[in-house]
Amino acid sequence: MIICKVVGHVWATKKEESLVGQKLMVVREMDGAGQLKEAQFVAADAVGAGVGEHVLVVEGSTARIAAGGNHLPVDCAIVGIIDTLEVEREREVNRSDTPGE
Amino acid sequence: MIICKVVGHVWATKKEESLVGQKLMVVREMDGAGQLKEAQFVAADAVGAGVGEHVLVVEGSTARIAAGGNHLPVDCAIVGIIDTLEVEREREVNRSDTPGE
Amino acid sequence: MIICKVVGHVWATKKEESLVGQKLMVVREMDGAGQLKEAQFVAADAVGAGVGEHVLVVEGSTARIAAGGNHLPVDCAIVGIIDTLEVEREREVNRSDTPGE
Amino acid sequence: MIICKVVGHVWATKKEESLVGQKLMVVREMDGAGQLKEAQFVAADAVGAGVGEHVLVVEGSTARIAAGGNHLPVDCAIVGIIDTLEVEREREVNRSDTPGE
Amino acid sequence: MIICKVVGHVWATKKEESLVGQKLMVVREMDGAGQLKEAQFVAADAVGAGVGEHVLVVEGSTARIAAGGNHLPVDCAIVGIIDTLEVEREREVNRSDTPGE
Repeated sequence: MIICKVVGHVWATKKEESLVGQKLMVVREMDGAGQLKEAQFVAADAVGAGVGEHVLVVEGSTARIAAGGNHLPVDCAIVGIIDTLEVEREREVNRSDTPGE
Repeated sequence: MIICKVVGHVWATKKEESLVGQKLMVVREMDGAGQLKEAQFVAADAVGAGVGEHVLVVEGSTARIAAGGNHLPVDCAIVGIIDTLEVEREREVNRSDTPGE
Repeated sequence: MIICKVVGHVWATKKEESLVGQKLMVVREMDGAGQLKEAQFVAADAVGAGVGEHVLVVEGSTARIAAGGNHLPVDCAIVGIIDTLEVEREREVNRSDTPGE
Repeated sequence: MIICKVVGHVWATKKEESLVGQKLMVVREMDGAGQLKEAQFVAADAVGAGVGEHVLVVEGSTARIAAGGNHLPVDCAIVGIIDTLEVEREREVNRSDTPGE
Repeated sequence: MIICKVVGHVWATKKEESLVGQKLMVVREMDGAGQLKEAQFVAADAVGAGVGEHVLVVEGSTARIAAGGNHLPVDCAIVGIIDTLEVEREREVNRSDTPGE
């Protein structure tokens, strides 16, 4: 899974019939430094997430399973709302930062 | 799904037999800032999209399902035409932008 | 699918048995500006493509279907030779290009 | 598989029912130079890994198999704890580094 | 498939049971210019490849098929050892290189 923030909604009247009834949220991935990446995804919401929440998102064939069935034209789905994220930041050595002496 | 803009068509006379009858559109992904990315995809159109429209695109095995069957050699498909996209832009802190003061 | 240009061939004597008889071509992806990307793929050719031609390429599990069977160890396949590509280039606003005035 | 370092945990009370009981770890990919990439993933842990350990991570449909069943909404899983990594670094020629002399 | 160079081995005592007996090699992808990318993968070896050899690597669900069974927690596998790679390099126009005159 990736960690994303829900940033909005998307509406599509004209769509695959089997998408009717799926709540579609716009999410953006959060990197290890807590920054949102520029890329955005549209995810089917299986857990009742709201805008502003941090969520767990699955991609690919797994998203169909999460969204409720292998026949669904869905490749991205929200499977959990994050309560706590506990991450150890290690000191990273960047090779373009030549340490002085 | 990703959010794309339909930017063109592609024609291929010599192709896999099972692709005959599939309408193939060229799409480009739109990022969170509303910019089109340089990468382009060719997607089977399952919903009657036109050039200039913003659409929902699925990838991978899900595209076969959307395009009408697991036997189709399709890994990208348009599954919805976007009416409204409502996204909250958060103030992003860019680490290379050292705030003056 | 992605749009690629066929740039070469690859030969492998020692390989998975089920790959015997598959014609393996080296392809490089073309972006929206008509530039080839640096990354290259090796694709099974299902349509008789030649070096220099622009082709439609599928990836992932779809490539197995295109190459002739779900048992094949293939994750990239050429499924069409492009005759015509008709794409609308939109004027893109690059955020680092601050428009004068 | 990719080589990752386990950097933390994630807790989600509200989640897909079938995720209950899965231990979810935050991992970051290690590149060929031993650096952690900025992107992070959440992986189901199938082998009892701890924070700080280097692990083998599978993605996609393979992660469901590793996590214990095709019905699980999991697309990333830890399948091994690395004891030894023996890698030959070749001298790489970087095209932007014009060798002096 | 992608073209990779085998650069090392990885050992993991504690791992998924079904991984026992799989030879796990560290590989790095080669781009169109013959450079190794920084990213590395761990691939199950189905053909007896050695360190220093250039190989064909499959990813995703296809790797399970190559490694010997759909139940294997493997998402990357070596399926061929490259004898010859014959690639046509085209003169690429880089848009940031403004041609003099």
